[in-house]
Amino acid sequence: MQPRIVEVREGVLKKNDLRARRLREEFGEHAVFVVSLVSSPGAGKTAFLEKTLRDLKAVWAVGALVGDLATDCDARRLGQAGVPVRQITTGTVCHLEAQMVADALEGWDLAALDMLFIENVGNLVCPSSYDLGEALRIVLMSVTEGEDKPLKYPTIFNSADLAIITKVDLADAVGFRRAEAHRNIREVRPGLEILEPSARTGEGMEGWFRRLRELSGLGS
Amino acid sequence: MQPRIVEVREGVLKKNDLRARRLREEFGEHAVFVVSLVSSPGAGKTAFLEKTLRDLKAVWAVGALVGDLATDCDARRLGQAGVPVRQITTGTVCHLEAQMVADALEGWDLAALDMLFIENVGNLVCPSSYDLGEALRIVLMSVTEGEDKPLKYPTIFNSADLAIITKVDLADAVGFRRAEAHRNIREVRPGLEILEPSARTGEGMEGWFRRLRELSGLGS
Repeated sequence: MQPRIVEVREGVLKKNDLRARRLREEFGEHAVFVVSLVSSPGAGKTAFLEKTLRDLKAVWAVGALVGDLATDCDARRLGQAGVPVRQITTGTVCHLEAQMVADALEGWDLAALDMLFIENVGNLVCPSSYDLGEALRIVLMSVTEGEDKPLKYPTIFNSADLAIITKVDLADAVGFRRAEAHRNIREVRPGLEILEPSARTGEGMEGWFRRLRELSGLGS
Repeated sequence: MQPRIVEVREGVLKKNDLRARRLREEFGEHAVFVVSLVSSPGAGKTAFLEKTLRDLKAVWAVGALVGDLATDCDARRLGQAGVPVRQITTGTVCHLEAQMVADALEGWDLAALDMLFIENVGNLVCPSSYDLGEALRIVLMSVTEGEDKPLKYPTIFNSADLAIITKVDLADAVGFRRAEAHRNIREVRPGLEILEPSARTGEGMEGWFRRLRELSGLGS
């Protein structure tokens, strides 16, 4: 990149970092545990989130923000889970930024929430550089994408706090090599915790909720 | 976006357009038909390209450039097809640009090629804005990603000349709704041609090659 572009990009990131820091303080003040989800388009973020919201709403006050370039399909879909959901439509912007999250939360009573999920635009590259004030960033990767994705998109795995492998019910059909996928994830991010809950069959969801309880420090 | 960012971005795009125009002229002078492939990470670009190169090399002189943030896995994999392949490693850049293509072609005898394939970084957003001098841009979408992707990522479908649906052998396993997917593609890009060749089973590949022959104007 030319020096001027780098300079502008750094300015944008610095501004985003400052906004994200303020958001994080705000989330802390209201004791809201914030989880963001990043992945390729179609890796199953929304299906995973839908199942999570439906199951968790009995225990905690949960809500979600969902990002897409266009449409409010996801907000409508997740809204059926019976929890508050707002859509962020980015237009041509390939990732969420802290200011978009702040704008979407306008008028939302954070104090009434225990946990907020933020689903990013489907993109395995650009969201990695933008802090959203989240406490936990989860990268999802589906078995259908191929075991090599962590090696090809290292930054997004590097900046995540937890990895979730999705669509495990298709593992046999696509000949998914689990050990290789785990090895590749940990090659770019040593020690990263990996879970494999299935939103479709429900298997492993209990383990995910238990982990979320531990990480959030929320009682039940 | 802030005015200054927009201005810089427009400058980058304009510079890219000029470079792409020169590339297109160069491809024309050497009678090389250039096809670019864009899709989500893991949609099957490389598997599709591998099958295509292996089958076409008996008919035409084919070659490929493959883009990734990191690794040269794809170039090594495609090189086994016995055709010239070069890797473009973008680092943190989320898309290919015309200058990267020009640099990668340095010293390559274009006159010896009939057809050049350019596989972009897996990203359903950013590559759409960057002309690479290609004659044909193909967007690939796998059945496992969900039928709604064209609606959520309209620009990349809008800027494509042909859509290919991949992993059709998994259509039943994931409950893929074909008519809905086609309708969504054509909602954002009326009349866009859609093919469904399977690199895994070989079904439909003949139709794809026939179409490529017609579009390229190359004899066989």
